Amino acid sequence: MRKVYISGLGQVPVTENWEKSIRELAGDAALLAMQDADIGYPDALYVGNMMAITANRQAQLGTMMSDWLGFHHKPGLAVEAACGSGAAAFRAAVIAIASGEIESALVIGVEKMTDSPGSEITASLATAADAELEGDFGLSFVAINALIMQRYMFEYGWRHADFADFSLNAHANAAHNPYARFQKAISRKSFLDAPMVAEPINLMDASPIGDGAAAIVLTSQPLSHNHPQVFVAASASCTDTLSVQNRKTPTFLTAAANSANRAYAQAGIGPQDIGVFEYHDAFSIMAALSLEACGFAEPGRGPQLALDGKIKFDSEIPVATMGGLKARGHPVGATGVYQLLEVTQQLRGAAGATQVKRTKYGMAQNIGGSGSNITTHILQRE
Amino acid sequence: MRKVYISGLGQVPVTENWEKSIRELAGDAALLAMQDADIGYPDALYVGNMMAITANRQAQLGTMMSDWLGFHHKPGLAVEAACGSGAAAFRAAVIAIASGEIESALVIGVEKMTDSPGSEITASLATAADAELEGDFGLSFVAINALIMQRYMFEYGWRHADFADFSLNAHANAAHNPYARFQKAISRKSFLDAPMVAEPINLMDASPIGDGAAAIVLTSQPLSHNHPQVFVAASASCTDTLSVQNRKTPTFLTAAANSANRAYAQAGIGPQDIGVFEYHDAFSIMAALSLEACGFAEPGRGPQLALDGKIKFDSEIPVATMGGLKARGHPVGATGVYQLLEVTQQLRGAAGATQVKRTKYGMAQNIGGSGSNITTHILQRE
Repeated sequence: MRKVYISGLGQVPVTENWEKSIRELAGDAALLAMQDADIGYPDALYVGNMMAITANRQAQLGTMMSDWLGFHHKPGLAVEAACGSGAAAFRAAVIAIASGEIESALVIGVEKMTDSPGSEITASLATAADAELEGDFGLSFVAINALIMQRYMFEYGWRHADFADFSLNAHANAAHNPYARFQKAISRKSFLDAPMVAEPINLMDASPIGDGAAAIVLTSQPLSHNHPQVFVAASASCTDTLSVQNRKTPTFLTAAANSANRAYAQAGIGPQDIGVFEYHDAFSIMAALSLEACGFAEPGRGPQLALDGKIKFDSEIPVATMGGLKARGHPVGATGVYQLLEVTQQLRGAAGATQVKRTKYGMAQNIGGSGSNITTHILQRE
Repeated sequence: MRKVYISGLGQVPVTENWEKSIRELAGDAALLAMQDADIGYPDALYVGNMMAITANRQAQLGTMMSDWLGFHHKPGLAVEAACGSGAAAFRAAVIAIASGEIESALVIGVEKMTDSPGSEITASLATAADAELEGDFGLSFVAINALIMQRYMFEYGWRHADFADFSLNAHANAAHNPYARFQKAISRKSFLDAPMVAEPINLMDASPIGDGAAAIVLTSQPLSHNHPQVFVAASASCTDTLSVQNRKTPTFLTAAANSANRAYAQAGIGPQDIGVFEYHDAFSIMAALSLEACGFAEPGRGPQLALDGKIKFDSEIPVATMGGLKARGHPVGATGVYQLLEVTQQLRGAAGATQVKRTKYGMAQNIGGSGSNITTHILQRE
């Protein structure tokens, strides 16, 4: 299959934005990406979104955005894999270009969550879990993650305080990202003293929802840019059981491991070659599990990487370099596209204050559900 | 790109099924399709669905079905284009196989609508329209179609009775389809006397919702079968404005015409070559507009084809040969896959009492929203 290039990037700040509708948010990000690529209208449009049908009473966002942007009579498709929708839409577009079906595509990830009452959003988020085996028993999404974290702490002997550095790192990096939901560093004390959400997950373990949109223009040919070309070296997707209880090892993200390993094989590299890793730190436990699944730490040893300072932007395996889900924010269907945009910025050398050193390979991993639908991309600087 | 073969078909009856959950319905259809193909697990799974997140409190059906069927660790994706979700999922799978990314795929269309109160389903269906320009003003989905039909009757001088034969044909054909929601012919009188839903659309102009699932196995190679091979000769998708009011000609389905014309060009044929056309007769007005958009009748002349008996299964342009949306039923996200399955049965020569005569080319057209997201496939017998 052909190479696919990342030729345009656009994003709007993740925030509580009551001034703009979902189509305006997504449209703003899309226009910036099209401007960055400077190629006019791409051949097709892919939208990653999870809950517009409930949060915004709007289905078929592929059509909505195609209409809003003036892509009339081009294909427009919505792709959904819960919180993994953004990367899933990106992957569908990559396949369509690699196949020769189209030469270019606009990928948008968008979610507008703050117009709705919190209880409705909590209910919508719970649909990412198994309705019959988890949701119907009152398990919210954070509650499921809390159970995983409890088990993990029990099995490996970690205390809650040992997870602090995931959040500290994310917030420290977000302080330099004008698109982040929380643009400030936090103290260890504020992590430890944060109010409890679902034992042991406190407010500083959990990523905030938000309104946000990010967009990427993909092309089959490199466009003339004044920055390095970045292309998709690997795209791999993997599912696991929908409910966590059906997994042999609930504390290991098997689908994340499989999708990362397939991606490494496609790119012909290993974890040691990754210069930046945008992981899916929806909760601090997911940060630890992602590092372990992707080969950066042994099972049960993820928190040590953070405690040793190795996840900082200028260290061994930089993660959440623009704030991650924890501090950039987690507008669920948009997150995967934000991650890919941020990795591209790093490989372009355009990441500003949190620029990583090794800019040949970057990885983004987007998780739908509690580790049930995982898409991993490796991007490469040409 | 490579040829893609339709190698397995499975469906469950469209009905009000309170005995089975959404995953059971979809699973039953999927297992039948995998049995028909007899190749074990395909490489990836694509699910077309519109409203499980509201009707069944379940998002990420790609994962759900991957889990339920035991596709562990394979990719599973949900695709959404409102009532056009089924064909959109099929098209995404076709592109992935044609590209060489995968060798085979299972495509499932599923919707389970009858567990919810009617008012909730009406609200969910309204999300296929433009929330800001249509839904927020109280326009239900049938109301939008009623406005289109009123305008069409005004412009071209048709009376309501002139649309009867679309429904009569659909129900007459469904009488022979054990998977149809209404397996009986209706009389002209029962069409004329049906209770009004939204003037001029009465109950016999409107397709019924239902619970249903259909599945297709696609492969890059023809499998040894005792029936003729059928492959995808064309796949084309096109969007239009989300709201009907923004169209220059609300009584012409421009996106249907564009997507059909692209499909004809891909297959190297014209409307005269199509031996069977499974159109998207969600309402009888959509039947007329589809025939016109796809080149079977001049604008404004669609009803004449029905009045002249030319749409019957043994006539010029057979439509709704297994009942269409009107009588087979319209479980929205599943419909597009039912259509493709039925066209394949016709081309295989396995359509029983309503078998069409010309079995070289068949076309299926699936519409999301009121003509806003349209996917057309042409299938060909080898």
